Amino acid sequence: MEMLTLSFVSSGEKPLYHQLYEYIKEEIRSGRIEFNTKLPSKRKLSAYLNISQNTIQAAYDQLIEEGYIVAVPKKGFFVSPLDNILNLDLKSSGKYIENRIKVEQLVYDFSYHGVDHDSFPFTIWRRLIKEAINEYDMDLLKPGSSQGRRDLRVSIAKYLRHSRGVNCSPEQIVISSGTESLFQILIQLLGQEYIYGIENPGYEKLNLLFKSNNAKFKTIDIDMKGMKMEEIEKSGADILCITPAHQFPSGEIMPITRRIKILNWAYERKSRYIIEDDYDSEFKYSGKPIPALFGLDTYDKVIYMGSLSKSLSPSIRVSYMVLPELLLNQYREKLSFIVCPVPTIDQKVLQRFIEDGHFERHINRMRNIYKRKREVLVGELVEFKGRIDVLGADAGLHLLLRVNNGMSEEDLVDKAKKVGIGVYGISNYFYNKNSLDKSATVLLGYAGMKDEEIRQAISKLTEIWL
Amino acid sequence: MEMLTLSFVSSGEKPLYHQLYEYIKEEIRSGRIEFNTKLPSKRKLSAYLNISQNTIQAAYDQLIEEGYIVAVPKKGFFVSPLDNILNLDLKSSGKYIENRIKVEQLVYDFSYHGVDHDSFPFTIWRRLIKEAINEYDMDLLKPGSSQGRRDLRVSIAKYLRHSRGVNCSPEQIVISSGTESLFQILIQLLGQEYIYGIENPGYEKLNLLFKSNNAKFKTIDIDMKGMKMEEIEKSGADILCITPAHQFPSGEIMPITRRIKILNWAYERKSRYIIEDDYDSEFKYSGKPIPALFGLDTYDKVIYMGSLSKSLSPSIRVSYMVLPELLLNQYREKLSFIVCPVPTIDQKVLQRFIEDGHFERHINRMRNIYKRKREVLVGELVEFKGRIDVLGADAGLHLLLRVNNGMSEEDLVDKAKKVGIGVYGISNYFYNKNSLDKSATVLLGYAGMKDEEIRQAISKLTEIWL
Repeated sequence: MEMLTLSFVSSGEKPLYHQLYEYIKEEIRSGRIEFNTKLPSKRKLSAYLNISQNTIQAAYDQLIEEGYIVAVPKKGFFVSPLDNILNLDLKSSGKYIENRIKVEQLVYDFSYHGVDHDSFPFTIWRRLIKEAINEYDMDLLKPGSSQGRRDLRVSIAKYLRHSRGVNCSPEQIVISSGTESLFQILIQLLGQEYIYGIENPGYEKLNLLFKSNNAKFKTIDIDMKGMKMEEIEKSGADILCITPAHQFPSGEIMPITRRIKILNWAYERKSRYIIEDDYDSEFKYSGKPIPALFGLDTYDKVIYMGSLSKSLSPSIRVSYMVLPELLLNQYREKLSFIVCPVPTIDQKVLQRFIEDGHFERHINRMRNIYKRKREVLVGELVEFKGRIDVLGADAGLHLLLRVNNGMSEEDLVDKAKKVGIGVYGISNYFYNKNSLDKSATVLLGYAGMKDEEIRQAISKLTEIWL
Repeated sequence: MEMLTLSFVSSGEKPLYHQLYEYIKEEIRSGRIEFNTKLPSKRKLSAYLNISQNTIQAAYDQLIEEGYIVAVPKKGFFVSPLDNILNLDLKSSGKYIENRIKVEQLVYDFSYHGVDHDSFPFTIWRRLIKEAINEYDMDLLKPGSSQGRRDLRVSIAKYLRHSRGVNCSPEQIVISSGTESLFQILIQLLGQEYIYGIENPGYEKLNLLFKSNNAKFKTIDIDMKGMKMEEIEKSGADILCITPAHQFPSGEIMPITRRIKILNWAYERKSRYIIEDDYDSEFKYSGKPIPALFGLDTYDKVIYMGSLSKSLSPSIRVSYMVLPELLLNQYREKLSFIVCPVPTIDQKVLQRFIEDGHFERHINRMRNIYKRKREVLVGELVEFKGRIDVLGADAGLHLLLRVNNGMSEEDLVDKAKKVGIGVYGISNYFYNKNSLDKSATVLLGYAGMKDEEIRQAISKLTEIWL
């Protein structure tokens, strides 16, 4: 332990040494200072607390006498191994209990939050970080800019142009940490007076996000092509939040006809905008790649949003958006005081990772890996001999299963859980349960599972679901 | 390349750094300095051209930013491949212009955003990161928890107890990226229906933050002890945002009498809370350390907020707050869907950094370094022979100067800027300018300046201010 901080009562009732003694004793008894901790030296503590070394000596002497600490010659003062049992008791009896999200003990987890751990480029990442931490780099400890480092935005702009058909300038890009924080910025930027339309079913946190930010929102039912046009009109929404590349969770790709209709809807009024969340668009396994909706937009009505959570890892906490001109100007006027939350070193590493081509190579590699995993999964499902439908496009990191065996969604999930398999009921993603049809459908994410695990899990599922 | 030779135009039209930057840029663009050439070291070039290393740093920084040169750790500065440069040129021809916060090219910058670059523990940090990026660590790529990693919260709780007298449990801590994001969370948590009271003068972004989050706020005038009690009552505020350890920008420490009054004010109503921003409390150079207000509170009315921006670096983007029980429960109910924005690797590195004692050692070291810088600065100010008052406690990383030479604040700032010195007028920090008194006062941050630079800058200031 380097230092102790306490306040002394100067009423004179208790001498300073006694107050210090009592304080340290309590800290030790409660377990807050742990067994074997080295106490600060008399010299240092004296300088820090601005009291004499004699006072500290007196307090330490008393603690030694009572057995709380021991003096080790030439080393210093250490806390004795007192009643470890009492310590432990006290420590765990706090009134606060950790808010642990109960992790089900799953042997096979088809969570859609996973990525392939084994394929993460650990070696390259380590090297790039080592290079980024450069004491000659005078930028490294400076507070960041609002939209994120320009060199990183240049790299992202190039990447978006090549891989997503998003033709934007680095100046339009705002970097932040996660899609949630981008939505928070947008709510501040666009204002609370508008109605946000979100897909039903959709990403399970979006409603919470709008609620906690006090923003109005309406859920809008989707069909196979995306949000239904008549539902959009009926909702009175001004700003639509959609996932055209791969609707979450249905897995459908919005066809060009609906894209044009939605853009035309946005063109009708000044207040209207479309927020395009392109969350896992890098992964499309057959057919031509489909450029982002942003690329079709000719009137600056689409806000493009991307993230590295699926393409690299959700633990990286990097997302970005591309603002149309008008909103960019408003951002600069109103919100440029916001500091980009991504640490400078991380921004530098990511910039090199993209600029040196590692990112595109990684994505190409992952596309093959995830494609194979999907094939393994779909291949195994033939066991169900027509009693199962695979829904969603040949893309992304998850698919939907409609199981026609007479079991309810809840039954499917519970039975799977009992044998240690995590699958996720589609109703989790319906804000408006009225729109839920009667068929039992579950979501399976496969990115975090190994081929062999997929085989084993599906083999178990056939046993309990058939 | 061993050396560069150019002649500077001393007309004063263009600063020296700019002339150097333009010269090198032209040399590179024309191909006269070839790709991969090593530029002279700052030290050598500074000696050779007889200009300061800061000037050379400024020129090199600009060249790095524009992509003409790169800094290679432990090797020096090298010219980039030319196609990179051409690329950059093309990129900047769009209709969007970079929203560059016009960085005045200052030779000496007394900005309070600086930290001592040379003392950052680069070697330890690099080692800890290398250790943290461990492919066998299955947590590394998982999405983070809402309040941040528990092991990091345990380390922060221990640190806060020893060094700030904040006795809290790790469960009460919420980790986020920067004080701004903590305030955003609190506004969502406490609600928009309350009035937030902010110190006048105060941290220059706080009003923007409340405005953009659509939260009501009132500015509350301070005296030497902190917010005035009668102004608090008059304002109708429910939640006070204060900096008792070292008021920003006045630099005063709130005495125990005012602390108790403010706590008692909070105890009067259920809706009342105090947000204690303890932004640079680690740095107190004389007298006893004063524990945080949080430690005095017996009725769960204080929300404690801390940050690593001053103690480590603003580019790290890590802050934390301690929630009282009631608010913790509300956080868990309403906001636990928020993902902690600090990347997992960064959280792991920081946890080791604190747990292994590096953090406290770093702070103790920095306390001595900043104490010395402050002494150098205050020592130099005797040149003003009583025509200057140093305001604020012997603490923190900045001080205020009241200059009694008949010049206005604006004059002081402008004259200093003309000779390349950045000082900051106190009126920048007044939300309500009516409360500003007539004396000309400027803020000087000294953390980012070297001793010698402080001496040179103050010597120049005496010339122009006397």
